[in-house]
Amino acid sequence: MCQLLGMNCNVPTDICFSFTGFQKRGGATDVHADGWGIAFFEGRAVRVFLDPLPSAQSPIAELVRNYPIRSLNVIAHIRKATQGVVTLENTHPFQRELWGRYWIFAHNGNLPQFQPRLDGSFVPVGNTDSERIFCWLLQSLRERFGAVMPERAELFDALHQLSDPLAAMGIFNYLLSNGDSLFAHSSTELSYIVRRAPFNVAHLKDEDVMVDFSEVTTPHDRVAIIATQPLTDNEPWIIMLPGSLWQFYEGEVLAQRLTTASPVKSLGVDG
Amino acid sequence: MCQLLGMNCNVPTDICFSFTGFQKRGGATDVHADGWGIAFFEGRAVRVFLDPLPSAQSPIAELVRNYPIRSLNVIAHIRKATQGVVTLENTHPFQRELWGRYWIFAHNGNLPQFQPRLDGSFVPVGNTDSERIFCWLLQSLRERFGAVMPERAELFDALHQLSDPLAAMGIFNYLLSNGDSLFAHSSTELSYIVRRAPFNVAHLKDEDVMVDFSEVTTPHDRVAIIATQPLTDNEPWIIMLPGSLWQFYEGEVLAQRLTTASPVKSLGVDG
Repeated sequence: MCQLLGMNCNVPTDICFSFTGFQKRGGATDVHADGWGIAFFEGRAVRVFLDPLPSAQSPIAELVRNYPIRSLNVIAHIRKATQGVVTLENTHPFQRELWGRYWIFAHNGNLPQFQPRLDGSFVPVGNTDSERIFCWLLQSLRERFGAVMPERAELFDALHQLSDPLAAMGIFNYLLSNGDSLFAHSSTELSYIVRRAPFNVAHLKDEDVMVDFSEVTTPHDRVAIIATQPLTDNEPWIIMLPGSLWQFYEGEVLAQRLTTASPVKSLGVDG
Repeated sequence: MCQLLGMNCNVPTDICFSFTGFQKRGGATDVHADGWGIAFFEGRAVRVFLDPLPSAQSPIAELVRNYPIRSLNVIAHIRKATQGVVTLENTHPFQRELWGRYWIFAHNGNLPQFQPRLDGSFVPVGNTDSERIFCWLLQSLRERFGAVMPERAELFDALHQLSDPLAAMGIFNYLLSNGDSLFAHSSTELSYIVRRAPFNVAHLKDEDVMVDFSEVTTPHDRVAIIATQPLTDNEPWIIMLPGSLWQFYEGEVLAQRLTTASPVKSLGVDG
């Protein structure tokens, strides 16, 4: 399995602090040593940094950690290969363009049985189930909405409907963004925290590093961090229920909904 | 205008030497200070590094110069904005996926009158004429060949037919690659050199740096470098005739053909 890290903010923010802890899990404090990647949205543009080296030893990760790129939406991934060999083309996050916007996708999970019909509009370059799912999601969105990107709420509804059957087929934690919203689907394991005023000191789990956010923020700032496992050991992370889809916008939760595969919903149905 | 740099090889090669000279033209020895980018194909994968900062001052350019990424196909671009504001989404090279392969495009020129009908399969994210041309080229290739990527020779023929009318409309120097071939269209200014055994010492124009390629190569290696202006001052660069399309494969010229807009061809026709 892999680990995911996402950030969604209301003002462009750098992710250096969270990335410092996350990076350690790629071969130092954890086993996710089969490459890593990170995507920064800046306006409509996106910059993706990929490296097949373990993030704990990657010179590109060092650059990312020390060069503060300010972004409203960030998606990062460190990989422990389950499907597909360790090559750069299988390194998340994946990027495509739809409706004149870049889309970024990273997946933690395993859906080997999912073999959708792809019509050629988005075709995987590598051989992971993750990239196949991403291509199918974008193809399905285009089929549904045609030539024009729908409103945020419609996108959330569509992604909920599309994710629901897949969540029943395997492990399907993902982060997806078009640079506007950040969508997060928890299938087994995902947590988030929203940092807002009054800001406090945070301390990383994976390295003895602290930051006093009150010194580097303004009272208006709002930053949501989403991660497979909480990155700090002194903040109230919220566990995202298995079987739930979330939409983050401007640093807070805009929408959330359980999927059919949610154990909670199943409990309700089965008594 | 902008400057282009391309590399096509038969064995994975780093571009650190050529990039050292090229980087200087982005704000130090030349005026191309409105951002820069470079794309490295590695197998089917591609890594794109973009920075809106002048390349001569960019920490990402420093990384690229010092971290030898070995690649068969590289496309780099430093920008002097003519169309579109200086933002990251207008920074070349541009990336899309077609037929399960990534495609990379960089353009030096200006075709403001070219306003093709785009069917939505590839839509520009920024507002440059360059990205619009790239989207139209890929859309046209898909229209022509359907779901399967054609052979190299067919691709060359198609790109020749597509580039020909555009070359008559303005300045249209470009580099395009799918990770297999590298296509280069000279509209006004483009040169190349093929380095092969016996290798010699090369000296950069833009910085007092030399490299003895015989020390870092094997006799089998073949490397084509394509650039707006020659990068070294002691090697026999070949000027690519204005109005010509070239296909490089495994470090040498696989095909070349004049376009109708070529002044040479026009001379022939008009007497």
